Amino acid sequence: MEPFKVSFLGPKASFSHQAAVEAFGASAQLTPCLSFADTFAAVQQGQSDYAIIPVENSSNGSVVQNLDLLADRNEIYGDVEVCAEHYLTVHHCFMVRKGVSSTYSSITKLYTHPQAWGQCEAFLSKNFKGVERQDVSSTSKAAEIVSKETTECSGAIASRFAAEYHGVDVLEENIEDRADNTTRFLILRNVHSERSARLTFEPTSTALKTLILFTVDHDSPGALADALSVFKDHGLNLTSINTRPSQRRAWQYVFFVECARVPTPQNQEAVTRVLQSLPQVTESCKYLGTWKDEF
Amino acid sequence: MEPFKVSFLGPKASFSHQAAVEAFGASAQLTPCLSFADTFAAVQQGQSDYAIIPVENSSNGSVVQNLDLLADRNEIYGDVEVCAEHYLTVHHCFMVRKGVSSTYSSITKLYTHPQAWGQCEAFLSKNFKGVERQDVSSTSKAAEIVSKETTECSGAIASRFAAEYHGVDVLEENIEDRADNTTRFLILRNVHSERSARLTFEPTSTALKTLILFTVDHDSPGALADALSVFKDHGLNLTSINTRPSQRRAWQYVFFVECARVPTPQNQEAVTRVLQSLPQVTESCKYLGTWKDEF
Repeated sequence: MEPFKVSFLGPKASFSHQAAVEAFGASAQLTPCLSFADTFAAVQQGQSDYAIIPVENSSNGSVVQNLDLLADRNEIYGDVEVCAEHYLTVHHCFMVRKGVSSTYSSITKLYTHPQAWGQCEAFLSKNFKGVERQDVSSTSKAAEIVSKETTECSGAIASRFAAEYHGVDVLEENIEDRADNTTRFLILRNVHSERSARLTFEPTSTALKTLILFTVDHDSPGALADALSVFKDHGLNLTSINTRPSQRRAWQYVFFVECARVPTPQNQEAVTRVLQSLPQVTESCKYLGTWKDEF
Repeated sequence: MEPFKVSFLGPKASFSHQAAVEAFGASAQLTPCLSFADTFAAVQQGQSDYAIIPVENSSNGSVVQNLDLLADRNEIYGDVEVCAEHYLTVHHCFMVRKGVSSTYSSITKLYTHPQAWGQCEAFLSKNFKGVERQDVSSTSKAAEIVSKETTECSGAIASRFAAEYHGVDVLEENIEDRADNTTRFLILRNVHSERSARLTFEPTSTALKTLILFTVDHDSPGALADALSVFKDHGLNLTSINTRPSQRRAWQYVFFVECARVPTPQNQEAVTRVLQSLPQVTESCKYLGTWKDEF
């Protein structure tokens, strides 16, 4: 069989790229996209077997652009479903151009993505107090910039993955403040695809997660509690709730409910039953997929 | 009595400033702050009677910086509580320097906050296709820039409030794509303040909203559903749920639950009872205030 085609948000050597390599291996055909919407479109249109998208970071919270794409308010990604998740531990390194004999004191300019400054505050204030900082659009871009520097005065903060991709020298690893900084990715497939993996719903010892979206009538008291009770009544544990504006009416929300169950012969139909019951207490609801809990 | 002191995120003529004027009137002493954290600190330290902060926009969703400040993970705003809410309808205008006889075709440069471009797409593509756009840090700043322009070729998108503050001419009003684009502000006070208003909990015909935060053990199945049931069991309707990373452990969340009740003699103690029951099913919980529903 041809290698799997996998879309991710570029540029190459981004954290999404690294997650794609970890999840699919180097033999997959990995394609950087210009936007998250393009990764969804690639799956919907069958150009990719899978897309891998970040949905939340353990420090920063939800990636709302991807929640909005999953909500699919314009109904253009109707065949996209979630089939797996992948956790990527975010480690930052300090790097300089290959072969440069830099000491920290010779560095006069630093490059990285704005979010990375905040994640490496202790390292930066210890070693680079007052040094000029240049924001760039991705940590991978920062590594690329120092790889092409003609002076010996520039340093970048990026992943080891980006350092190796761009061929720069890592002077220090794990410079992040929090060792447990982790991003959770979801893996998307097309429900009609015959190539991409389908989950089999036989009982396993691993918990299964399911993502269901719904909207409730804002003016109907108790509707949200009633909708959440449906999950509990059928033995599904809520593991995550997110909300986004419905963008149809002000103050109406789309709820993203993730629930989990350890499969047993008794609860095989639990998701089906939830989906049968929800329409009685919600305005709309939508099943977005079931996958193995990798937490 | 001296006028109330109210803190808001500046600059002057920002949407927060407009919300403060609408909520407190022009006689209040309104103080722009450099950050949302500064508005919280002003209330905590008693420099301001109130702060007014945006918490959600009907199109864009939550203002996560303010949710994080309400979560108060470092326990530095322990005396800050929510005492009211205010809804501000967001209208945009197109404006030029006072007295300039501009036609749209003579405009060669536009200024506004990045979010406003996206909110006025129809107007911009109809009238200013291909015209240079300059991002600025606030819509108020955009109005200020054109007020000082020496050429006649610049236009700004900002509120009528900002146009009047900076003395520029509005050429067109309500240029936003969605007429119902609204931001909800919360008003903060210090629980020890004797000047700022306290709610009286006598039954009224208006619904009361209450904000309660809690964390649950991620590994305890059903804990979230159990916590949410507590609200329902005591007759409180869930009107909003938000989550943010706890930033203590990865994948542990702070839940922000807003609930509402029309006060009756029977449910006067509902919030007290919820706060008595929640500790049995949560790791931690915190009451953040009760106020009149203005929706």
